[in-house]
Amino acid sequence: MEGPKVTPWEVQIKTEEDYKRLIELFGVKPLTNELKERLKELTGELHLLIRRDFYYAHRDLDLVINDVEEGKGFFLYTGIAPSKGSMHIGHLVPFILTQWFQEKFGANVYIMFPDEEKYWAKKVDSVKEVQEKIRNIHARFIAALGFDPDKTFMFMDSEYIKQLYSAAIPIARRINISTAKSVFGFSGDTSIGLVFYVALQIAPTFFEEKRPLIPCGIDQDPYFRVQRDIAPSLGGYKTADILSKMVWGLKGPYTKMSASDPESAIFVTDDYETVKRKIFKYAFSGGQPILELHRKLGGNPNIDVSFFWLKILFEPDDKKLKELEDSYRNGELTTGELKEYTIKKIWEFLEPLQKRAKKINIDKYFYEGKLAQEMWNWKFPLP
Amino acid sequence: MEGPKVTPWEVQIKTEEDYKRLIELFGVKPLTNELKERLKELTGELHLLIRRDFYYAHRDLDLVINDVEEGKGFFLYTGIAPSKGSMHIGHLVPFILTQWFQEKFGANVYIMFPDEEKYWAKKVDSVKEVQEKIRNIHARFIAALGFDPDKTFMFMDSEYIKQLYSAAIPIARRINISTAKSVFGFSGDTSIGLVFYVALQIAPTFFEEKRPLIPCGIDQDPYFRVQRDIAPSLGGYKTADILSKMVWGLKGPYTKMSASDPESAIFVTDDYETVKRKIFKYAFSGGQPILELHRKLGGNPNIDVSFFWLKILFEPDDKKLKELEDSYRNGELTTGELKEYTIKKIWEFLEPLQKRAKKINIDKYFYEGKLAQEMWNWKFPLP
Repeated sequence: MEGPKVTPWEVQIKTEEDYKRLIELFGVKPLTNELKERLKELTGELHLLIRRDFYYAHRDLDLVINDVEEGKGFFLYTGIAPSKGSMHIGHLVPFILTQWFQEKFGANVYIMFPDEEKYWAKKVDSVKEVQEKIRNIHARFIAALGFDPDKTFMFMDSEYIKQLYSAAIPIARRINISTAKSVFGFSGDTSIGLVFYVALQIAPTFFEEKRPLIPCGIDQDPYFRVQRDIAPSLGGYKTADILSKMVWGLKGPYTKMSASDPESAIFVTDDYETVKRKIFKYAFSGGQPILELHRKLGGNPNIDVSFFWLKILFEPDDKKLKELEDSYRNGELTTGELKEYTIKKIWEFLEPLQKRAKKINIDKYFYEGKLAQEMWNWKFPLP
Repeated sequence: MEGPKVTPWEVQIKTEEDYKRLIELFGVKPLTNELKERLKELTGELHLLIRRDFYYAHRDLDLVINDVEEGKGFFLYTGIAPSKGSMHIGHLVPFILTQWFQEKFGANVYIMFPDEEKYWAKKVDSVKEVQEKIRNIHARFIAALGFDPDKTFMFMDSEYIKQLYSAAIPIARRINISTAKSVFGFSGDTSIGLVFYVALQIAPTFFEEKRPLIPCGIDQDPYFRVQRDIAPSLGGYKTADILSKMVWGLKGPYTKMSASDPESAIFVTDDYETVKRKIFKYAFSGGQPILELHRKLGGNPNIDVSFFWLKILFEPDDKKLKELEDSYRNGELTTGELKEYTIKKIWEFLEPLQKRAKKINIDKYFYEGKLAQEMWNWKFPLP
């Protein structure tokens, strides 16, 4: 089938149309208004990431809602594999939605930090550095989003491998080289580690005898398609996922926010001056090149990176967002003003997050919290 | 290159010539008389498995001997992955030689029990059963051969994976799918577990900062060829190995002694009556079909399975073996008499081994012995 190229290692999306085609290509379902209404009845409100259609597709979210209504509940699973560079605001997106789900449903959350994946993918050369980043940045900023330390278990693969491996054994038996190659686009020079990693990423979907819900970018769907094929034979639930579009980098619509390119991304550790400079200098604008023209022709919020970020994350007020959109479109609001406002909103989010991140005791999430303590004794039943 | 087909999962050897061709095909060296003399100077005697050329090839055994002479020492690594059926006397062969090396040199021995390999290879359907076999049979009979409980560490992959994984991470990065496919003959429907297992089997070669010596069947050489390619980049030693021919099953020369076919193998757990019955009923004979003919034409020890086993293992007395060979060849010794003698010799070996195996405390080797305790704290330096 023809379509936009998307594997966990390569994403080529160029238009909103591509996202629609991915729904067909991957065989997932669009997040309909009806489903959003059902969710809203349970949560009282919808997170703006869902309300504004950044999360736009799913598998079995309807079944998750059924499970909640029937009192069975569900659990959440997500993760991040640090690579070169730092953590950026795009990385936070799935965690923000995951934290919202935890808050609304009191569900357990499992956060995997694959400290070996990018090393196997040859994107980094040091596992040690990856581990330091996880401890000093990723785990802290994620925890600082408000995860419950007694209902959230964070782990690094190399530390938690004994438990993971108990599930990876029966999982790996059910995935062959051909499947791995075709689903993930592996080639002959792919490391045998990266091939096996598929089984490890699937393992946590069997942590509880409940349905796992995974908020993630649609590029991560291949892992869970494989999971859904094998879950029944392992006596587990097929994963449900809620799938997002990809965040834009500063350089323009459908560009990547890359941890290894500081001009493309706002890092979670950036100070105010850096955020300001990056937005002013690099954030692609939908405005006109000259003020006079802008006043006359207006700007295009649809291709404006600052507006994109306000819309998906930093301006929760729908009315305010509409005002910004309208006044930008009719030329009242200038690019400079829009950027000023975006910087302000980002910093309102980032400054307290940075303060909280500093104070986080990550050991609570890794070892000491209630769920963490339970999980260090977890084992998948031996086949 | 044309040659006999040999991978760790498939061995097709039909003649002694094939073994010579394997030396060229694999790029290993023949075990020369000169090298055997050097070894003999250190050990005082040679084990009959070496003396009688059942171990017939090697890589870097000369360097191991240098290391001993220079006081550096070496360590031994071997293992076995239980499959369907029981453990047979063929399985004991590499362990017998390994124990001899330990006794002669006081070297540490690492014995890997991959409890997941055959499950991944789809030769067994239960890891639990494999683990039970390891605990009740394999570990006991191996230990009973005389391994020093303070210098021998036995482990099962799924239990020891955290430590193994620390080395498997940098190893797996250095092996790609193409290499794995070409060296091990993997195909598209090979499980991703079995592919990754290559890295796990290599991991113990980095347990010490000494040269690892691996006594094994020549069919296991592919693993260590890969190890030798990547060891220098990991700051480790290339493995040395001493390679044996394949043992014969009861059904004839160059047949397989198969754990899943009781008519092909003497199991270590067989009682006297069973050994007797199997040898009489199934052991392929090089004798003549009728006594009269046998007396006239004589038997052929070269294709006689009973004689094979006396030669490689159960008749250590060279003079006695020569007598048996000569009298069988000239027809004095009948097939029945040769079989009687073989049964007696096997049982002289097996009966005390079974008694010792029953009394073995395997926890000494897995957890409590001096080396075992050290190894539970072992970790490969993080890349």
